[in-house]
Amino acid sequence: MTVGERGEHALLGWLRRQMPAPGADVIVGIGDDAAVLAPTRGSYLVQTTDALVEGVHFDLRWSTPVDVGRRAVAVNLSDLAAMGARPSWLLLSLIVPETLPVAAFEALVMSVGDAARHAGASVIGGNITRTTGPLVVDVTATGHVRPRRILRRAAARAGDELWLTGSIGAAAAGLAMLRAGVPGDAACIARYKVPEPRLRDGWAMARDRAARAAIDLSDGLADAVHQICTAAGVGARLDAATLPLEPAARLWFAAHGVDPVLAAIGASDDYEMLFAVAPGAKGRMRAARAGSATPFTCIGTLTRQPACVLTRDGVETPLPTGFEHFASV
Amino acid sequence: MTVGERGEHALLGWLRRQMPAPGADVIVGIGDDAAVLAPTRGSYLVQTTDALVEGVHFDLRWSTPVDVGRRAVAVNLSDLAAMGARPSWLLLSLIVPETLPVAAFEALVMSVGDAARHAGASVIGGNITRTTGPLVVDVTATGHVRPRRILRRAAARAGDELWLTGSIGAAAAGLAMLRAGVPGDAACIARYKVPEPRLRDGWAMARDRAARAAIDLSDGLADAVHQICTAAGVGARLDAATLPLEPAARLWFAAHGVDPVLAAIGASDDYEMLFAVAPGAKGRMRAARAGSATPFTCIGTLTRQPACVLTRDGVETPLPTGFEHFASV
Repeated sequence: MTVGERGEHALLGWLRRQMPAPGADVIVGIGDDAAVLAPTRGSYLVQTTDALVEGVHFDLRWSTPVDVGRRAVAVNLSDLAAMGARPSWLLLSLIVPETLPVAAFEALVMSVGDAARHAGASVIGGNITRTTGPLVVDVTATGHVRPRRILRRAAARAGDELWLTGSIGAAAAGLAMLRAGVPGDAACIARYKVPEPRLRDGWAMARDRAARAAIDLSDGLADAVHQICTAAGVGARLDAATLPLEPAARLWFAAHGVDPVLAAIGASDDYEMLFAVAPGAKGRMRAARAGSATPFTCIGTLTRQPACVLTRDGVETPLPTGFEHFASV
Repeated sequence: MTVGERGEHALLGWLRRQMPAPGADVIVGIGDDAAVLAPTRGSYLVQTTDALVEGVHFDLRWSTPVDVGRRAVAVNLSDLAAMGARPSWLLLSLIVPETLPVAAFEALVMSVGDAARHAGASVIGGNITRTTGPLVVDVTATGHVRPRRILRRAAARAGDELWLTGSIGAAAAGLAMLRAGVPGDAACIARYKVPEPRLRDGWAMARDRAARAAIDLSDGLADAVHQICTAAGVGARLDAATLPLEPAARLWFAAHGVDPVLAAIGASDDYEMLFAVAPGAKGRMRAARAGSATPFTCIGTLTRQPACVLTRDGVETPLPTGFEHFASV
């Protein structure tokens, strides 16, 4: 059975029953003209929206509906965490081809509910509409952060160290492996299919005021560095030798005639986090990292001179501007 | 030039410069990982999302990009007003075919900014992504309402009168006229193209606690009555003779062999508001309506018996269930 045959009221009724029980801060949840919510006293709200489009951000040949639902939540929670904010409420807007099987619709919605529950957020409403085009999963996430703990890009300063979580290039290599249709590295493929944003690291770096600024790597490292530099009015000096390239990704890129460093710094979908850390904040960063298994690597520093520079084998070049495409504001 | 040729950064930079100056409650606006917002003390937040899909909700043969932007904002503000809430912040998510002319993109974005400014709201961020399918304009609106002034559907009670703003059927007749490609009634066509939701009436009925419950007519009157009855556990008795059908719509439907009453109660896109008013609240309703030019019509009452009934020429029939399609939760 398809969603077109099932009809709106049946889909909505099902969706409402499946969503996790809302938190106490949800005064009116799914089922009225709009949701009514009680904000946390003494906190600011943090809000973002990000959409996944079939054929652009995912391909149902390689990703299951569960993967897509998880990713749609992950990309939004990653943006909140990059501001230091914990998620409270999610709105789910589904633009659905009428030919989509009901089973796929249900799996997608369930995975959004599961991801919300896992992150401590409530699904408070949404919208379902049909389309003649590809499936679109549009999520809006609202969270909370205490005013003194916000991680703003513009707060970065010359002299700050740039610390990067995890490794880069894995998701892009994983996608390339899937597209090539050959057996690939399981870790790279998993990283592409199910992003695991560094939520706890973002929250902890904000909580302990260990970072001055943060940004997530949804559009790649080079783009993230340029964004933070533009917002803060500074430059950056990165050392290619320190960049934590995922080993299997490095091998894959090299074997396919692609410069691994350039591929990795331009690669999107890694959902790692980049922090600007003041020179005197090492102790606070140790406190924030306590109990986290996430590797942190210092990849460079912010500079007074506004250029972004990559040092490689002793040679300085301008940092590539990264992948130009449509994205978030 | 198309949006695909223009590229993301240019589109986003342009968008950021065009949006109205954000209000004092916007701590971080467009340009970081997420927006940071200061909620109003003593108020609840009200949040909704609604998407317009090209070929489903609008047709660029009949509607300009400016019409589409206005409608995308209007449908969301209508949902907030139906809860008694004033809008504070809008997020704009655009899913754009790469072939869309930049001029159309710009006109659409400008009209969203204008509609936000007109309603006293700030555009705090959004997302732009490309698609291989139709244009999708997805807006999320967040507003504020004082806890004692929320208009919940479930708060309606048996014995309440049902009061309807304006007239019904005009937008559906306007769309039918456009589709027929013949000269039609200008008022009906304008009503279809540029919905003007009854925001001030919703806010005033909430402010003066004149209504117990409210719902907007985005999916038609019959659907609205069923929704309010289901939520409140009551029934309704409507009198067909009292229904404020738009005269030109009545003529159009009758001339085309369609029962005008059934067409009008099933018609969507009128963006009128339906209020449940307690018998003792007439004075408060007069106060709320002071200064409003909006006609209000009493079309029936809520009943203890849970059936929804339409009385017409002395004959009682079950109220049709209305148009079944994909919609909001």
